[in-house]
Amino acid sequence: MLIVKMTDCQGDAARSPMELYEKLTAQGDKVRSLKTAKAEKAEIDAAVQLLLKLKVDYKQATGQDYKVGCPPSENSLTSENGLAADGNNGDDEVNPWSVSTNNAKGVDYDKLIVRFGSSKIDQELVDRIEKVTGQKPHHFLRRGIFFSHRDMHQVLDTYEKHKSFFLYTGRGPSSQAMHVGHLIPFIFTKWLQDVFDIPLVVQLTDDEKYLWKDLTLEQCHQFAVENAKDIIACGFDVNKTFIFSDLDYTGASPQFYRNVVKIQKHVTFNQVKGIFGFTDSDCIGKISFPAIQAAPSFSNSFPHIFGDKKDIQCLIPCAIDQDPYFRMTRDVAPRIGYPKPALLHSTFFPALQGAQTKMSASDANSSIFLTDTAKQIKNKINKYAFSGGKDTVEEHRKYGGNVDVDVSFMYLTFFLEDDHKLEKIRQDYTSGALLTGELKKMLIETLQPIIAEHQEQRKQVTDEMVKRFMTPRPLNFNL
Amino acid sequence: MLIVKMTDCQGDAARSPMELYEKLTAQGDKVRSLKTAKAEKAEIDAAVQLLLKLKVDYKQATGQDYKVGCPPSENSLTSENGLAADGNNGDDEVNPWSVSTNNAKGVDYDKLIVRFGSSKIDQELVDRIEKVTGQKPHHFLRRGIFFSHRDMHQVLDTYEKHKSFFLYTGRGPSSQAMHVGHLIPFIFTKWLQDVFDIPLVVQLTDDEKYLWKDLTLEQCHQFAVENAKDIIACGFDVNKTFIFSDLDYTGASPQFYRNVVKIQKHVTFNQVKGIFGFTDSDCIGKISFPAIQAAPSFSNSFPHIFGDKKDIQCLIPCAIDQDPYFRMTRDVAPRIGYPKPALLHSTFFPALQGAQTKMSASDANSSIFLTDTAKQIKNKINKYAFSGGKDTVEEHRKYGGNVDVDVSFMYLTFFLEDDHKLEKIRQDYTSGALLTGELKKMLIETLQPIIAEHQEQRKQVTDEMVKRFMTPRPLNFNL
Repeated sequence: MLIVKMTDCQGDAARSPMELYEKLTAQGDKVRSLKTAKAEKAEIDAAVQLLLKLKVDYKQATGQDYKVGCPPSENSLTSENGLAADGNNGDDEVNPWSVSTNNAKGVDYDKLIVRFGSSKIDQELVDRIEKVTGQKPHHFLRRGIFFSHRDMHQVLDTYEKHKSFFLYTGRGPSSQAMHVGHLIPFIFTKWLQDVFDIPLVVQLTDDEKYLWKDLTLEQCHQFAVENAKDIIACGFDVNKTFIFSDLDYTGASPQFYRNVVKIQKHVTFNQVKGIFGFTDSDCIGKISFPAIQAAPSFSNSFPHIFGDKKDIQCLIPCAIDQDPYFRMTRDVAPRIGYPKPALLHSTFFPALQGAQTKMSASDANSSIFLTDTAKQIKNKINKYAFSGGKDTVEEHRKYGGNVDVDVSFMYLTFFLEDDHKLEKIRQDYTSGALLTGELKKMLIETLQPIIAEHQEQRKQVTDEMVKRFMTPRPLNFNL
Repeated sequence: MLIVKMTDCQGDAARSPMELYEKLTAQGDKVRSLKTAKAEKAEIDAAVQLLLKLKVDYKQATGQDYKVGCPPSENSLTSENGLAADGNNGDDEVNPWSVSTNNAKGVDYDKLIVRFGSSKIDQELVDRIEKVTGQKPHHFLRRGIFFSHRDMHQVLDTYEKHKSFFLYTGRGPSSQAMHVGHLIPFIFTKWLQDVFDIPLVVQLTDDEKYLWKDLTLEQCHQFAVENAKDIIACGFDVNKTFIFSDLDYTGASPQFYRNVVKIQKHVTFNQVKGIFGFTDSDCIGKISFPAIQAAPSFSNSFPHIFGDKKDIQCLIPCAIDQDPYFRMTRDVAPRIGYPKPALLHSTFFPALQGAQTKMSASDANSSIFLTDTAKQIKNKINKYAFSGGKDTVEEHRKYGGNVDVDVSFMYLTFFLEDDHKLEKIRQDYTSGALLTGELKKMLIETLQPIIAEHQEQRKQVTDEMVKRFMTPRPLNFNL
């Protein structure tokens, strides 16, 4: 039994993780001493409230859960950015397993760029991509849907010197059902493949899903194969694309496993704890998994494509919640003699209910699935899509709607290619000339044919084609 | 700043890890409070002494370092034995990376059996093996060199019902040089293969050596191939033996990787911390490696041998320092629907300098290598082999020698097959009739032809043969 007397610690604002840690420890002791002393309930409650608040602050500042007696760890991997690595600073939570914000406009992406230490995709970079490729930049670039990057200028420098690079993206196959949001990186990756004429590797992390979810290996692998069909339906060139399931490829490529082990030797538990928030209670599979997602960043993981060349630059288009994996990868790369992968980061595809969170396949009402019928699409948008319009037609006509929080408008920025049409909709909705019902109708009429065409494309994908895409083999590639 | 008043805690003997933990926490607070109160130096010193003692007790009881605020983890893996898992109880240290004792007779193996929770190989079991196989038991069994087991009776039950089982053993290829001690498990495993007529898988953990040592992947893999030649030279039947490098086979067998991931999902960092003593500063490769050593215990890791059968009993002959891996494996097995592997544990092969530690390839003077010439063998034994004899011939004749600490005699128990000769040597040396020089000469004359024959056998091992042993393929095996 401890009898503890604490110094008061509520006065000044905490500055560093260590200061926060000390405050928390002191406050924990205070709560215990109040309880021991059988203090007034109100007094105890107030002390507990402060304790909880400090814990939240601590988690935001360090990316780690507070633990008595375990001071914040020095995490060398945060040093590239000089900031906490898991992005839990401020109100927005952004990590590979959770994305949420209190803001109806969605995550504050400018803040995220500062927090993650990446660079904004500015007009200069968009113009340069146009110049180098000779192609009009994809509307995802023009509209800031791909908004952040790491080392994209370096990739373009390389390309201008007539040296090639390769693309790497992926998907975690947690269910058979993919939703429209899942298409975003693949649509953009296909565009990149077309304009740069380069090979692409697509990792399906069925092992990750087995480790994180209550699913069997067989289920995860089956989901990987089903998801591969949707990916193939995006129109990738089979001669330039290798899609692989981790469960198959790790066990089919000694060179891939060698790179995994190399990475695993150069990352400590302290580091993955800092980056991903793992705890001592997590299984050793989760703890070592980040190396599996890192390995495809290195060209010699695919000897059937790149031979033993280990210096071919990799470019990873992905949603920004995957960045922690690649911050880790970029930290390890020079230490094992490989180039750092470059990145292009996209925003999240909002849930129907609003941009506070991203669309999630596990919440059927938040998602438009690639298997939905035209009628389902119509009903879901009409019923669930969060509106930035006013409560009555009269008010809406008078004050106009708010495109910044309107989910239907947001979806149009993703799927309506015509810039002029989109701008006209923005103006008309803002002025009140366009009603919410009319806006939703436009979205429905935009999405229905896109989904229908995807379904048609997917029907054409035979088991034979899946097998071909997923077989390790040489690809068309000029070094 | 904490001002703490503690209850006294020096009175009663601690019983459980949790009680020890509480005592330690209390004592730590006491030390702090004494320092804060600027108490007498002697009083502080006494309190610190007790604190240090409690920390040692705690480590011995739990296998974990004491950490403020982190109570002993509930480690289900120790529960099979009801004892600390890493074997650091008492004076003997026994774990996969270190073996040492203060006792010149070597590790106290009876204590180890109690501590690890295994069973002694008693005369009844030796007799039963003789009855079941119809063969005279190997002298390693007759002489207690293989001294401990788990579930060997169950293996024999299975075998008596005409159901087969398979053998699994391995080696960590940390250098090209194998010493005579390394032969022990292989000599015994070959005998088991012969008398039971069953398949054998041999794991070469080149990935482990890369993770633990300052070596490249290429070096470790090369050592694996060189070590395979020494193993093949022991006379294994190519039609019943599969030898594999982890770096090759993990990347060549989706089913092996699937089992690795299954195991990794069912073991937490807390558990490997408790069993192997890993810390937060260890790389994630080490942390997840135990799953790689566990996976060959399950028959469906080798579909080319056992198809998809997952219920074929595995028997693992190994030195007892490897037991922590298999305690973990046996804990996981039922939770992933696989049978627990059975084990046969050997003692350690003593260093030339004495049985306080095992022979180590990294200490050239402690070892007789399989590449040593007849002359080197003679010189090393004469120069280094620790003697249980007396200082002068007169004293030796009068008082006799001590075979319990004499390394030459110990080596003869391993390598001299003739029980009568060995007994005669024991008696003569103990009585003083046999001098140390004569005993050493007998060992030299026993070892030289064994090593020479091994070298001759190894010369016959062609690259083609290595390739055949190391190629995944069906083996002669009747289920």
